[in-house]
Amino acid sequence: MALRVQKYGGTSVADIECINNVADRVVKAHDQGDKVVVVLSAMAGVTDKLIALAKQASDTPDKRELDVLLATGEQTTASLLAMILKSRGYKAKSFLGFQAGIKTDTFSGKARILDINGDNVMQALDNGHICVIAGFQGADENGAITTLGRGGSDTSAVAIASSLKADVCEIFTDVDGVYTTDPRICSTARKIKTISYEEMLEMAILGAKVLQIRSVEFAKKFNVPVHVRSSFNEEEGTMVINESSDMESVVVSGVTLDMNEARITLKCVPDQPGISAKIFTPLAEAEIMVDMIIQNTRSGGETDITFTVTKDDFERAKEISEKVAEEIDAEDVLTGEEIAKVSVIGLGMKSHSGVAATMFKALASENINIRLISTSEIRISCIILAKYAELAVRTLHCAFNLDKEK
Amino acid sequence: MALRVQKYGGTSVADIECINNVADRVVKAHDQGDKVVVVLSAMAGVTDKLIALAKQASDTPDKRELDVLLATGEQTTASLLAMILKSRGYKAKSFLGFQAGIKTDTFSGKARILDINGDNVMQALDNGHICVIAGFQGADENGAITTLGRGGSDTSAVAIASSLKADVCEIFTDVDGVYTTDPRICSTARKIKTISYEEMLEMAILGAKVLQIRSVEFAKKFNVPVHVRSSFNEEEGTMVINESSDMESVVVSGVTLDMNEARITLKCVPDQPGISAKIFTPLAEAEIMVDMIIQNTRSGGETDITFTVTKDDFERAKEISEKVAEEIDAEDVLTGEEIAKVSVIGLGMKSHSGVAATMFKALASENINIRLISTSEIRISCIILAKYAELAVRTLHCAFNLDKEK
Repeated sequence: MALRVQKYGGTSVADIECINNVADRVVKAHDQGDKVVVVLSAMAGVTDKLIALAKQASDTPDKRELDVLLATGEQTTASLLAMILKSRGYKAKSFLGFQAGIKTDTFSGKARILDINGDNVMQALDNGHICVIAGFQGADENGAITTLGRGGSDTSAVAIASSLKADVCEIFTDVDGVYTTDPRICSTARKIKTISYEEMLEMAILGAKVLQIRSVEFAKKFNVPVHVRSSFNEEEGTMVINESSDMESVVVSGVTLDMNEARITLKCVPDQPGISAKIFTPLAEAEIMVDMIIQNTRSGGETDITFTVTKDDFERAKEISEKVAEEIDAEDVLTGEEIAKVSVIGLGMKSHSGVAATMFKALASENINIRLISTSEIRISCIILAKYAELAVRTLHCAFNLDKEK
Repeated sequence: MALRVQKYGGTSVADIECINNVADRVVKAHDQGDKVVVVLSAMAGVTDKLIALAKQASDTPDKRELDVLLATGEQTTASLLAMILKSRGYKAKSFLGFQAGIKTDTFSGKARILDINGDNVMQALDNGHICVIAGFQGADENGAITTLGRGGSDTSAVAIASSLKADVCEIFTDVDGVYTTDPRICSTARKIKTISYEEMLEMAILGAKVLQIRSVEFAKKFNVPVHVRSSFNEEEGTMVINESSDMESVVVSGVTLDMNEARITLKCVPDQPGISAKIFTPLAEAEIMVDMIIQNTRSGGETDITFTVTKDDFERAKEISEKVAEEIDAEDVLTGEEIAKVSVIGLGMKSHSGVAATMFKALASENINIRLISTSEIRISCIILAKYAELAVRTLHCAFNLDKEK
């Protein structure tokens, strides 16, 4: 008998028919003798509709109240699934975030889980209940409803799995696993059978939208085995687990593409100590995350500083940069180019050299110019012009033999 | 400076424009220096939509889970109004039922308020907040979400007003007060300026849908002054208050019509002790409320027993009655006639005789046959054939001079 946490995303609970299919799957696991905890997202599109409603109410909806509004989406699906399970004769019970003991900080819209008291859920499981938990939400220390940000239901599921010491956290979604790259861009993309937390984390950060980043961090921290799989078939998906010895044979596991960055360049900045701080402190104060930074020293004691931010933050970042540019006497602020970030990711990079060279050579062979480069222990990312994005992905996928079965 | 609880119904918060109008009114009271607590219903039609969704999920939706689902309706409007108020620069905060300290019993779908701990709301008021409370909902001792039944937001509002010792509980609705009868049926119906809790209670029970019955019981018990008024204009509505000496001049305050009853007759029942218990015990066990009962003794030791139930309970009541009829050897169970209940209500009946006679004479003058009669200290009700309903209302309204300004 295993304890399984199953998370179903928005497309898997898009309407009553879909929720009935979820019930089929939940019941099957329960009938096998497993204890089942289900974590649900809102119906596909509902969160966007609620945000649109909030925007009608206010151009900048209050974040605390937006959380109260958005939390209704998961409340709806959780109660509906519990109803369906009960009407089929099963013991079932819905839990809102606060009822499932999910305590978060007070950072509305992007709250972090501080602690989970799983006693209520565990007690219901022990009484034979299937527990249906509204994902994406919790409550802060004052009892205010909070939400965990886009994709937060993944994090709810992993955190709950961790607190209940579940045997597995199954993430059911509309794709059947994690792929070597986006199959819509590259037809030879293959499903990855097992992937390490570290690799999955890099893939998630870089735009593979299968799992929310924080859910992978959580899984890594608490060593929760995560199974990413399709809610539309019975096939095995991708297991996200701790690094293991047999993984090392693969140098590069995947290629990712992120089209959601924008570039800002401050031209001819005086090359003096403290200048970088003057540029990036106001951005940090405005809670703008800067991704890549590059500095090109020019002759004459001047330098160009280029950095990237997400498109969401671009307008604010541009305004702030223009103000700073005036203060520090920079020549100009350049923006506007559509850029893309392609990355190769692989644990094997830790012990294999030559990955960067292969990457640069492959891109050069297609005359794709690299604008910025950044690396981590298991990742190399290049900023290129957006128009080359798909070509670059296919080129790299082939260059690292990802199209070939291992 | 007064403490005002303002409750707005579904048509007053039907969309963002309506909620903005509510905000105008709330802000006006706040700017006058009043402390304002707002209690909201769900957007008009939303509760019905959610019920339809639940019925898709299950023919007989689990009541606990239905409450979780329905509670999203008020959660939505409360968060939206709080957003709008904050975007206008006011301090505002939404409270769900449990956050407002509304403790109920566990009777899902029809929960009763056991206690309100108004500390959180009072503290927010003292800090200058406008408090926006999701009506219709509370939480039981285990923290499960409960709802208070149709129109429950009225009860929320009155209960909150009572717990906060508010100066007035204003019920904003789509009519501008309580009328002597339904103006859609009788064009000479007039708005009543003040009405006693007792009369309002009878009016509410008998189908004047302005206020939920329990909210009036609550107001009466805790002596909360209730002001029923329109959310679409500034006119004074109807004050519902304690009985006062100057009310006694009016014998009859209003005429009500209830089309929601159905009649069941058990024909030729043996006239023996204990027979009534045999008929009505199984109905009570099935939680069916029986309204009027009449017994006509026939010759030969037999009797006909007729009673009325709401149309919702009719099918179940009929089944039970047919089973009982067999057991007690009754000749037949008769049903099917469409009936209506017309009533006249007035505190003055306590001290004036002749009201019943006037009523029966008026109905007789239009050849309307009375099938059943029931009375209370301040009410006389007659069951008639449904086809005469409107005629009866107009006839009685005129017979008691309700069309004339007092």
